[in-house]
Parts: sequence; structure tokens; C-alpha cells
Amino acid sequence: MDSVKVGVVGCGTVGSGVVKILLENGRLIKERTGKEIELTLVADRNVERVRKLGVPEELIVDDGFAVVESDVDIVVELVGGTTVAKDIVRKALENGKHVVSANKALFASFGEELFSIAAKNGVSIRFEASVGGGIPVVKALNEGLIANKVEKILGIINGTANFILTEMTERGISFEEALEVAKEMGYAEANPSLDVDGIDAAHKIAILASIAYGGWITIDDVYVKGIREITPLDVDFAHEFGYKIKLLAVAKPDDGKVEVRVHPAMLPEGHILSSVDGVFNACLIEGDFVGPTLYYGMGAGQKPTASAVVADVADIACGRGSSVPVSLLGRGARIPVKRPGEFVSSFYLRFTAVDKPGVLAKISSILGKFNISIKMALQKSIEFNGGVPVVMTTHEAAFETVKEAIAEIDELDVIVKPTFLCMIEE
Amino acid sequence: MDSVKVGVVGCGTVGSGVVKILLENGRLIKERTGKEIELTLVADRNVERVRKLGVPEELIVDDGFAVVESDVDIVVELVGGTTVAKDIVRKALENGKHVVSANKALFASFGEELFSIAAKNGVSIRFEASVGGGIPVVKALNEGLIANKVEKILGIINGTANFILTEMTERGISFEEALEVAKEMGYAEANPSLDVDGIDAAHKIAILASIAYGGWITIDDVYVKGIREITPLDVDFAHEFGYKIKLLAVAKPDDGKVEVRVHPAMLPEGHILSSVDGVFNACLIEGDFVGPTLYYGMGAGQKPTASAVVADVADIACGRGSSVPVSLLGRGARIPVKRPGEFVSSFYLRFTAVDKPGVLAKISSILGKFNISIKMALQKSIEFNGGVPVVMTTHEAAFETVKEAIAEIDELDVIVKPTFLCMIEE
Repeated sequence: MDSVKVGVVGCGTVGSGVVKILLENGRLIKERTGKEIELTLVADRNVERVRKLGVPEELIVDDGFAVVESDVDIVVELVGGTTVAKDIVRKALENGKHVVSANKALFASFGEELFSIAAKNGVSIRFEASVGGGIPVVKALNEGLIANKVEKILGIINGTANFILTEMTERGISFEEALEVAKEMGYAEANPSLDVDGIDAAHKIAILASIAYGGWITIDDVYVKGIREITPLDVDFAHEFGYKIKLLAVAKPDDGKVEVRVHPAMLPEGHILSSVDGVFNACLIEGDFVGPTLYYGMGAGQKPTASAVVADVADIACGRGSSVPVSLLGRGARIPVKRPGEFVSSFYLRFTAVDKPGVLAKISSILGKFNISIKMALQKSIEFNGGVPVVMTTHEAAFETVKEAIAEIDELDVIVKPTFLCMIEE
Repeated sequence: MDSVKVGVVGCGTVGSGVVKILLENGRLIKERTGKEIELTLVADRNVERVRKLGVPEELIVDDGFAVVESDVDIVVELVGGTTVAKDIVRKALENGKHVVSANKALFASFGEELFSIAAKNGVSIRFEASVGGGIPVVKALNEGLIANKVEKILGIINGTANFILTEMTERGISFEEALEVAKEMGYAEANPSLDVDGIDAAHKIAILASIAYGGWITIDDVYVKGIREITPLDVDFAHEFGYKIKLLAVAKPDDGKVEVRVHPAMLPEGHILSSVDGVFNACLIEGDFVGPTLYYGMGAGQKPTASAVVADVADIACGRGSSVPVSLLGRGARIPVKRPGEFVSSFYLRFTAVDKPGVLAKISSILGKFNISIKMALQKSIEFNGGVPVVMTTHEAAFETVKEAIAEIDELDVIVKPTFLCMIEE
């Protein structure tokens, strides 16, 4: 096709960005692709904000389904969420429209259903903007690294959480204080749960893992833990041990299963991901032939996200449709996922104990009983949560075993607060 | 097509890697793409080394042109150089074969001719492996960032030079010593000129700039300077000023022209490219919408390079043909390139002077006359090349002016050796 008709459903932050790119760089895109990308319809309940972007009146509608029922070739879904958005996408696919979407929650929950509808109707879904904002990491994984077994994915894929942890690290402030800064700067929403509780990152790693391992992994398959429990003390101890704390998304295959998790993790300070600070995102993908590769950039925001959306539109216009593994286009492509208890890692443990002799002995004797071997231990005589902090790092141990040991340790009368634990990614 | 016939011409390091991937991961690639990639012919003058890879006898030929004249769909050219390789590629295209190649020299010299032949014959050329080894940076630029005006490309795209500079920085050794280490480790060839004189990096940035700006930029358009003149002293001074020295490839548009250059540059130590060490490559691409993005990985070596070659083959098998700007498919797409004299930069200058009072005054008075403003100056009483080093950093100035000033300074009788200069990339 020499021209494609595009309809945008949802003209909030990202939708406005898409309209802006098409207006500003539309000619450049045509020079590069030889294709005319015609913005044919823009739907938003708030038609006023569409008008303000300079979209001609006749292209504006207030109902997303009007776009889906029109003669557009591509529907760009930027409504968000998994209710109306799902109906829009499903209906678009059934009507033979290609779909471009930035909706991570949608594909991490209903990918299997939607991609099989797309395949049945001979149309494509592209979703670059759903992970890593403007960074073409979905394309890298689907296409650029296609010749590789994916040995590991490590991602810093939530800019808000990364900003908060960077602020905590650089300024020594608490989680709550850093969250306030993030809100003031527009990086965190009034309800920051999706970001700080790891859910957004879990959606994204579910999508990347699905591509890498060729079966649908949903949000329910991902072990998720957020960053609320991290204290400035943990940041300091991490530094003393040579680590930085990051909200890490991990996917890796092991023994016929896939391990998919999102949680705060300690990374060696010299690790390339440790230098990814502020709202930046980065994804480290290791392949058996290519080795480690890294993709870095703005993981959110109007312009970067719109850049990825329009790249998807251009791909479809140029005949480069869906590039997910074909196994994801049918029903029933699932892969076994590890239970959290099966994870093996080294750990950072922070106990809060009474300031009396013999505490370290009691803790380490229980760890010894569970065969958990201690690498480093540090006790500081500073008041913390009504006790003193005792921190340890361990050699590799099963998560299950560590949790059992901690449950027993937390029963000790010398322990005054539940123990905090954090995986270490070497 | 459900299966594609692939012929490999040239079975050296990379060619062997391609054969290995297809043997080891062929099934995985088929599961992902739904396409059978059939290795149909492998040509090498040394048929013995092809046999050793386990390629069946009936697929082996000793003449690359036999592949080009066969019924393969895709010719993978891994001969290298610009003579036989060019004939192979041209003939393949004329015979209606798609071409995949890792040959940076070829496209940086004859891109215009070859891509126009491809377009005329309705076939594609893909060349991911020509830049950045296994890193899918060509794809990112051609496809992932297509919606962006490219504001700047900064690349560390020669692993050998980067390894040498990293050794010099970390171990305080000389260029010659570091080159020896690189040779011992197999990172540098017996004749290292292509790498250490910047020519390889110049080929690569010519290709990236051609894509980014939509007109063919050849190796002759690139200002090139290598790393031979850098001394441990420069590395130390750089560190004192807060910089690291890297062989940097730069492309950026300015005032209707494109500036394309490869040379040692000082980068702030906190710059993300400063942490790219050893044989790793990285490319920072800034777009007007996406902002800064970075692509990092192994820039050379059998397995990473083969990973990129096979990704290109898979792309073509999946119907994702050429994705360069369409302006590169015709004849005459050229863009004006800046003369080196027009470059504007801040500079590091290292003078070698006699150890007498008044030297600094003489140097700075000439710089002042040329309106070059000094930012920092440092003189050390250490013996160096028969004098003492006097180093300065300047504010922004035109390269032309700086060279004129240096020519005049080098005439001073207090100056005992030609002055070394290095651009600073802030």
C-alpha cells in the first residue's frame, strides 16, 4: 500500500504525541518509507483536547468504536486499561484492521486471545511502545536477536521506580520523600501503586518473556515485589557491600521452565545496569550467539512513547507486520513457569534485633541449620525501628529455604521487626 | 515463502558462525518464524574448512559465483573487501537474489550503485552485521527510530581501538604496548591499520549517516584520524580534566550539511559512552522525539556477527526486505558534507615546549590572537619528548582556526615537537 489510513483511539498524553509526530515529521517519514501515513480519525471523549492539537474538525470523533468501524487500515489503541481497550482492539482485529498499541497491561493479560484473533483475521498487532517507551527493544527481541536462544533478560523497565531509587541513593532520602519528589516532577501518579509495587514492570517483563520463550506468560505468572520496604539504611549497606539497589525485571530459562520476576535487587556497582539512573530504562538481553546486548533510553513520556507507536505504524505501512514468534499466534502456547520458591539466588538479609550480645550467633545458627551459607555480615550500633540492624549477604540458596529460615528467625525474641530480604544479581 | 534457500559465499570466521547458528538454532528459528531456512550452498576456496563444520559434501563449492548462479533465494556475502565481493553482490542482485552482507567497506564505498541495482531488480540488501557486530543498531535506525529526525549519532564502533584505549587507560601502558596485547588476544590483525587508523569506524559511521540523513555518504566524506598519537600522558591529563579518551564516530546535521567524523575524542567520565570499555561497542542515537537511545554489545567476533547476519536472513524470509530510506534506492541521493575546517568543537591541546619561563605566555598570546579562549591550562615539569608538556582545553572554536593557531605556535622556537590536538565531546 502506498498510503495507509490510521485512526487513533485515545488522545491523552501518548495519543497527542502521535498526532504531533505525524504533523511534524510526517513528510520525513514519507521520504523514508515512500508511504503516506494518513491520519484519518482521532477519537477521544474530550474532543476539545484533540481540537487543540490542530486536528481538522472532520477527523475528530468522540467514540473509539467509530474508528474501529471506519475504513482505516490501522487502529492505534491508546485508551489504556483492559476493559474498553480490549473491546476496541478485539473489534478492530475482527474488522480486519491492524492494531498498534502501547498497552502493556492488555497484552500481559489477554495476549493469547488477541493475537489469535489477529492471526485468524490475517492482521497484525504491533506493540513496541508497551515496553521501554521509545527504545526499540521489542523489535530487537522479535527480529534483531531472532537467531539466538535468549539466556537472560534483565531490565530496568519502570522509570518511576528507578527515579525514586536513584533519588534515595544519591540524596539519602527515604522512599516516602523520594516518592513525593517523583510526584512533584510528574513522574509518579497520585496513586503510584502500578509503578512502585512493580506491577507495570511485571506487565512488561511478561511480554518480553513471552516473545523470548515463545509461549504466553501472563502477569499472574510473574513474581512481583515492589520497592516500598527499602530504607536509606539498605541503600547504605548495599553501597558498603559494593551494590546498588534497582527494581529489576528478570526472565531466564532454567531446566525446562522460565523464571520471571520483578523485585528490588542488588546489582554490583560496576554492572552496566547500575549506571542506568533517573527515569531512564534499560534492558540487557543475553543471547547464546550475540552475547550481552543492551538497549537504553527514555522508558516513558509523551514523545518517546509516540516515537515507538509511529514506528509500528510505519512498519505495518511498509508491509512489516507482526513479528512475534508464530507460536504466539495460536491458542495454547504456554510454557511452565517457576514457582518463586524454586528461585535460587544470593540474598541480602536485614534483621532488626535487640542490641544484646549473642544475636548474631542465634541468627547464624538458624541459617546454618538450613544450610544457608553467609558471605558477609555487618552489625551496626544504630537505632533502627526499635532495634539495631544486622545485615548479611548469603551465598546462593533457594528462596523457599531462605523464607523458611527467616520465618524461624523472626520468631526469636531478639528479633523486633520482620526481616527484610533482597535478591542479589551478580 | 515457507522456506528460503540460502547460499553462503565466504566461510571464514563469520561464515563459519553463520553455518553454526543455522545448524544449532535452525529449529528454533523455524519455530519462531514459521520459515525453513535451508542452507543450500556454501562456497569457499578452502573447501576443507567448510567440511570441518559438518556441511554435507554436496552443499560445498569452491567458487562463489556458483552460488550466485544457483537457485538460492538469498546470497550471504562474507568474502569481505571491495573487489570480488562487489562482483558477487552485483551479480547476485542482477540474478534476482536478495543479499545479506557484513561488508562495511563495500557499502561505504559502493552503496549507491549496489542499492540501485537491488531496487531495479526488486530485491533487498540487508547489512545489519556491517555496523556494531551483533547489536541490531542498523535495524533500530532504519525501523525503530523512523519517526525521528536524527539529531546526533555518537558511536564507539571499533572494538580493537576501544580495547587498546581501555588498556592504555586502565594499565597506563603505551599505544604500542596495548596494541601488542590486542594482537596477542586476537583482537588486532597483523596489520592493524583499518582499526587503529579509524578507517573501519569511518566505514561504519558512513553507513549509519547515510541511513539517518537519507543520502549516500561515502568513506571519502568522513574526516578520519586514528589513535596512534595518543600517549599515556594524554590519558592522564584527560583524567585530570575529568575525561576519558575514546575513538569516537560522530554524525550530526548542521545547517543543511552533515558532519561525519571519526577521531579520538575526550568524553566526560560520567558520559554513558565512557563506560563502554574493552572490545564492546555502543552507539548513542538521539532523535527529536525519542531523545537519547543507546545500543550496546559485542561489536565483532564470530558469533555476534553471525547472529546479525542470520537475523537479516530471517527478516527477508519473513518478507521484511530492505528498510533503508527509499531515497537510498535510487541514484544521486547525496547530501552535502561539512569540510573538517568547518567543525566547531572544544579542544584539548598538548604542546611540547622547552622548560623555560614565558612559554605559556607565548602560546596563549597566539591563541588569543586567533580568538581561541582557554578553559583550563596545566603545565607539568616532567620530561616528555625532549621538552615538557603544556596542555590546555579550549572553549568552542572552529577546527580551521585552531589548526592555523597551532601552525603558528609550532613555529615558535620554544616548541620542540608538533602539537597534538583532540576534540572534546561534551
